[in-house]
Amino acid sequence: MAIKIRKATYNDMPDVLELIKELAHFEREPDAVEVTVKELQADGFATNPAFFCLVAEKNNQIQGMALMYMRYSTWKGKVLHLEDLIVKNDARGAGIGTRLFDAVVKYGSKLGVKRISWVVLDWNHTAIEFYKKKGARVLDDWAVVQLDERGIKNYIDNLSQ
Amino acid sequence: MAIKIRKATYNDMPDVLELIKELAHFEREPDAVEVTVKELQADGFATNPAFFCLVAEKNNQIQGMALMYMRYSTWKGKVLHLEDLIVKNDARGAGIGTRLFDAVVKYGSKLGVKRISWVVLDWNHTAIEFYKKKGARVLDDWAVVQLDERGIKNYIDNLSQ
Repeated sequence: MAIKIRKATYNDMPDVLELIKELAHFEREPDAVEVTVKELQADGFATNPAFFCLVAEKNNQIQGMALMYMRYSTWKGKVLHLEDLIVKNDARGAGIGTRLFDAVVKYGSKLGVKRISWVVLDWNHTAIEFYKKKGARVLDDWAVVQLDERGIKNYIDNLSQ
Repeated sequence: MAIKIRKATYNDMPDVLELIKELAHFEREPDAVEVTVKELQADGFATNPAFFCLVAEKNNQIQGMALMYMRYSTWKGKVLHLEDLIVKNDARGAGIGTRLFDAVVKYGSKLGVKRISWVVLDWNHTAIEFYKKKGARVLDDWAVVQLDERGIKNYIDNLSQ
């Protein structure tokens, strides 16, 4: 059965959230997902959407998704960032991930961006080798820093003391 | 002399680009800066700006800047990303960086985002300790992956073969 890649619609967001939750569960952080179907629908399908989403269908069922948005490099200007590429656990090995990734690169190429970026867990050697073979550069000397909701609140509280 | 933090204007972009270039020179990648004043002006001051920029002034001269934009977390929704925070080399140690960083966190707090993120070089222990003390979490198990302009072109060429 053929795989079909298409732009996600407003009504696909429940399926997309299921994929997000499946991955979070796999990463043992099921409670980390705070986003809701309503938020995905409002944020992704507004006049200025916060993201662009592709879905992969097989047997008329959504089996994977790729979610991306523009970032801004002070060296290169507008660049495309792939936030998540998820394939349903029981649909792996059928080439869906590759098809989605191909579509992401095509989308970036069409936009004319000078870079497409994403992140990978540094112990995921299979993925790293795959990306390198595809021509990507893996920068392992940068660390991601996050100030979460509570951190932001504490920071502001300390400022006003 | 007091430090003044304010929103950057269209006419500040030449100064902002100078700061970007100074940092690239310091990082020994002076030729990596492809962005131009015109692009910064067009991208940052459009109807839907690609970034938001703050500048720090002292003696009525721009001594630093912070450039940020929204990203989208599939777990948290809209989050703020600080792409660059630069203080002129000869203006360091005067608290400009801290004042800019305070303003970034205030901006994120005002927007109500659930996260502010940025990256740090993993050998920059001073910065890492500073961020941790401020309540941030440093995720050193993720690597950044980039497919650059040539990589995108090669990828597309291989697809159509």
